[in-house]
Amino acid sequence: MQTARMPGAGPVDNTTSPHARLRTLPFGDVRLSEGFWTGRQAVVHETSLPTGYHMLDAAGNLHDLRLAAGLAQGEYQGPVFMDSDVYKWLEAAAYTLARRPDPELEKMADSLIELIGQAQGSDGYVDSYWQVVEPERRWQDLSFGHELYCAGHLIQAAVAYHRGTGNTRLLEIAQRFADNIDSVFGPDKRDGTPGHPEIEMALVELYRDTGERRYLDLAQFFVDRRGHGLLDASRQRHSAYFQDHVPVREASTVEGHAVRQLYLTSGLADLYLETGDDALWQALLRQWDDMVLRKMYVTGGLGSRHMGEAFGEAYELPNDRAYCETCAAIASVMWNWRMLLATGESRYVDVLERALYNSILSGISLDGQSYFYVNPLLSHGIDSLIGRKFAERFGWHSCACCPPNVMRLFASLDHYVATRDREGVQIHLYAPADLDLSFAGERRARLRLETEYPWSGAVHIEIQETDGGPWSLSLRIPEWANSATLQVNGQPLATYPTRHGYAIIERAWQAGDVIDLTLPMASRLTEAHPWVDPTRNSLALERGPLVYCLEQPDQDPAVHVLNVEIDPTSALEESWRPDLLGGVVTVEANGTAFDMSAWAGRLYAPLNTTASLARRPTRLTAIPYYAWANRGAAAMRVWIPRGAENQ
Amino acid sequence: MQTARMPGAGPVDNTTSPHARLRTLPFGDVRLSEGFWTGRQAVVHETSLPTGYHMLDAAGNLHDLRLAAGLAQGEYQGPVFMDSDVYKWLEAAAYTLARRPDPELEKMADSLIELIGQAQGSDGYVDSYWQVVEPERRWQDLSFGHELYCAGHLIQAAVAYHRGTGNTRLLEIAQRFADNIDSVFGPDKRDGTPGHPEIEMALVELYRDTGERRYLDLAQFFVDRRGHGLLDASRQRHSAYFQDHVPVREASTVEGHAVRQLYLTSGLADLYLETGDDALWQALLRQWDDMVLRKMYVTGGLGSRHMGEAFGEAYELPNDRAYCETCAAIASVMWNWRMLLATGESRYVDVLERALYNSILSGISLDGQSYFYVNPLLSHGIDSLIGRKFAERFGWHSCACCPPNVMRLFASLDHYVATRDREGVQIHLYAPADLDLSFAGERRARLRLETEYPWSGAVHIEIQETDGGPWSLSLRIPEWANSATLQVNGQPLATYPTRHGYAIIERAWQAGDVIDLTLPMASRLTEAHPWVDPTRNSLALERGPLVYCLEQPDQDPAVHVLNVEIDPTSALEESWRPDLLGGVVTVEANGTAFDMSAWAGRLYAPLNTTASLARRPTRLTAIPYYAWANRGAAAMRVWIPRGAENQ
Repeated sequence: MQTARMPGAGPVDNTTSPHARLRTLPFGDVRLSEGFWTGRQAVVHETSLPTGYHMLDAAGNLHDLRLAAGLAQGEYQGPVFMDSDVYKWLEAAAYTLARRPDPELEKMADSLIELIGQAQGSDGYVDSYWQVVEPERRWQDLSFGHELYCAGHLIQAAVAYHRGTGNTRLLEIAQRFADNIDSVFGPDKRDGTPGHPEIEMALVELYRDTGERRYLDLAQFFVDRRGHGLLDASRQRHSAYFQDHVPVREASTVEGHAVRQLYLTSGLADLYLETGDDALWQALLRQWDDMVLRKMYVTGGLGSRHMGEAFGEAYELPNDRAYCETCAAIASVMWNWRMLLATGESRYVDVLERALYNSILSGISLDGQSYFYVNPLLSHGIDSLIGRKFAERFGWHSCACCPPNVMRLFASLDHYVATRDREGVQIHLYAPADLDLSFAGERRARLRLETEYPWSGAVHIEIQETDGGPWSLSLRIPEWANSATLQVNGQPLATYPTRHGYAIIERAWQAGDVIDLTLPMASRLTEAHPWVDPTRNSLALERGPLVYCLEQPDQDPAVHVLNVEIDPTSALEESWRPDLLGGVVTVEANGTAFDMSAWAGRLYAPLNTTASLARRPTRLTAIPYYAWANRGAAAMRVWIPRGAENQ
Repeated sequence: MQTARMPGAGPVDNTTSPHARLRTLPFGDVRLSEGFWTGRQAVVHETSLPTGYHMLDAAGNLHDLRLAAGLAQGEYQGPVFMDSDVYKWLEAAAYTLARRPDPELEKMADSLIELIGQAQGSDGYVDSYWQVVEPERRWQDLSFGHELYCAGHLIQAAVAYHRGTGNTRLLEIAQRFADNIDSVFGPDKRDGTPGHPEIEMALVELYRDTGERRYLDLAQFFVDRRGHGLLDASRQRHSAYFQDHVPVREASTVEGHAVRQLYLTSGLADLYLETGDDALWQALLRQWDDMVLRKMYVTGGLGSRHMGEAFGEAYELPNDRAYCETCAAIASVMWNWRMLLATGESRYVDVLERALYNSILSGISLDGQSYFYVNPLLSHGIDSLIGRKFAERFGWHSCACCPPNVMRLFASLDHYVATRDREGVQIHLYAPADLDLSFAGERRARLRLETEYPWSGAVHIEIQETDGGPWSLSLRIPEWANSATLQVNGQPLATYPTRHGYAIIERAWQAGDVIDLTLPMASRLTEAHPWVDPTRNSLALERGPLVYCLEQPDQDPAVHVLNVEIDPTSALEESWRPDLLGGVVTVEANGTAFDMSAWAGRLYAPLNTTASLARRPTRLTAIPYYAWANRGAAAMRVWIPRGAENQ
């Protein structure tokens, strides 16, 4: 199978960004090869994308665009942001087509692009809701109208389509709309800032793709106008809902609607890469600390509250009512990627990888046909009429933002594997891949990565071709892997320099050189900060980048997963189970199951009621969290109460 | 001070209810005397009621009625249910006037009644919002219009005013409105059921007060029409929000908006008392179990979710985001009181008393001037722009349902002390009081209760007068008091019959007989069901009916209340502190404070990070939960992590 050479970079092309430490690679320079993620990409390609196309038709997204194009009659269907799902699908299609030609998929994509072009007005404006339902109120409801949000997704899709296929048709449409927006908004024009951030990073990328400075200026304008009360917060009670409570450079916390917050910080980081605005950067550092030290789930999930789909207070991290919208974790990948590009620090990839393997991957079923919008860390299975919808995956959704968001991320995942700088190449995510790179001016190299990651910590890298000049290979050492070992051509490196969490090997590489990185993949038990109320005296089981969970189908049928404790001293026994959930490593531990009869008919009871419960040893079997709820609704927990030692 | 003799009963008069086991007493038959609750009543009388009157004026409630009466000009102010706050204030005034003449208060009340009368239309309809703002849409929005809700509060106030003062002016107004409603709704008339239950219990009480059967039938109609999809759930996503998801007799869980749910179950219990409808009763029993065994906080607070002000799933009881609306706990008092009247079972008073002393009493400041709408069990104090409003009490509220609800409950509290049946008298709540009763046909008795409850468990009852015939005195033994002892005339009763949680002493009582009940008031440590995630390995401190909390101002200033553990074997040392928070018993315990430096810069960390923290002994001082947040915003927790034993 021949892989198409992508003419541009992936989602982010910071080749010329003045304030980048690391540069993204042209998309085709890294090609994932058969392994964990190509499996997910294949499911997205073969199932999610075609299913999604039909869902866009069935749910009315295409109908709405046809209405705008004058090609159909009837009522507008769905929420105001229906177009954005079409654009995210197109972005996913673009990355997919860049990796592998698919005439069928290309035909679908082209038909959508054709339709968008037909819907676009002569002035460049295109937004089916505001064209069809309230044409007289265009740009009147920036708080909840989502016009700039949809425009941002159109631009991202267009840049991706241009980069992925070389076809400029969608880019022309998007640029006409961007020019229309630029003619409306600006310092001497209409004032405003979007209720749902998204256009900021899109405009920066459009600037990168076209070289047109006015798009960067427009992004800057929208950013600078935020936090000045231009948005009407009455519908959500507090302007923090859309991060309008404070000018962006004064923010010190992540607040409000999590996806809005993280699309915004992604756009701000993009701006920083271009402008080097230090006040903006200091705010991003403060906000990142607030998120990672006080408001992030162990799964990388973000947003504690269903109400407002929002970040909670510091340490407010309920397991059962965790919102953890799939899109918020995807937004975290976007933001952390840009923070990495600005700094070269591995801590941003640690957070990115945590979201990717856990709170995002849980958002799509193994078969690619159903989704979670909400990704809780504790489920009783189906125990009430309302809770049911968070225990079972849905086929599509009235607010279908997450499905095409997962598709576009997975389809573009090659982009996040590696970067380059003047000294050499940095590997951030471990996956089997072929890399064909030029860097540091005239250096060139062809590398092959081989690994069973995340199941195995062995990463084998072969230099297949290089030009004989010296360059450095930087390999990320994940936060959990501080006992990682390195060999070059079979010789262990007793020590190696590290910087920003990367092992750095610099030498005049030769074709045939091999590097073996061994990450310690022993399962480990993790605690949460004592101020996190619902994880008290509980342990999470992790292995490599994966967070594990106990799901009812894997346990002794006589034992309810809510009635167990784990022995913290237990050996943790790992088994490769190719038959289970598409192939997973399970982790077994010793624990106890308790007899709850003393609690029957009581919600509160005197001291030592729980301590006195009859206990019997049981074997606990944990699966990767991402794989839960693929066997129907069942009780599941990530955090396991800590029991007595040495059972 | 002479107490006015109340001509009728208090909020509930079930004297002739066919399916009651216990009968409420005429209001004047029980007069609280100086003690814990008269202190609260005095604050309500002297501060909250006059302040509330001025707030009703300042917030626009009176303005809205003046608009409806044609006495003012301008815009309607506030939410659609503004009238209901006026009615609840009037209900509180009625009970207050029944206990003690107050010409000033009576003048305020009369002016409001006059105003309501002026606002009332010639057809009997009165609801300022729908008269002023959308007169053409009367009865068109039963889901969210609150017309029947406001009518219910008018009726309750009117019955109270009638019973409390003998004045029938408000009753005439209410009856005209009730007749108007009866002319609109019914089997052969308009179909419908209210989005916010309240009118059900009001109509049953109006039936009891007037003897007019049609009011009972109308209540029955509204109840029977619920659960048939007549309400438009689109604004709240699920019909369970207003308990319209299932016919009332098929319900088995408490769901949705907690105040709506519990006003409904109160009305259903009232209906049962009149009709004996067994299917209804079985549903109430199932729902009560669901609430008390799976969805109630240790404080008696109800409603786990800010979103929809709603009950959560089973065992979903977050401490930090507990909603626990003050009104929901008040509604629980109403429902449990009616369940008691139907059964004579003390478990209903246990739940009632838990709400009263904790989640309700916390809803009003000690000075009676500020309120909590939301009553969490954990607060970090002020730590964010949004959290602030749940850490500090407010003077009034845009949705001011809670303040006058507390006022009317406290003003009517005499009503909940005792009941009668054919055998004698039942004492449910312990408070200093004078009782002057007739019961069991021709029996009569005058009793005096003396007690320092809830600070002391000693209850001294003197029979001051009786008629020499035999009768039984039933004394509630709270759930936590199973080692209670009883003496009659100084002689311990080695055994005594009990039924439904009451000690029963039957004899031919003589004037001068004294009974001494001693309830064990030793402080105790309580656990929650292991399925309640945020209370794992934590203990609540309780003493008598009071739940305690650790609030920052009472601790060693070097120790943060979030960084402590309690020694479960510690002696619990009690001190009467007359100077503190209006006079409270504090409880001190041994614990440890841990040095959190190992957690600095981390949210997750390896196994045993918390176990390895440096700990030092500290003394923990707990205050009654109800008294928190009377010294400004400060960190507070009810549930204390369990530390090592024998510090």
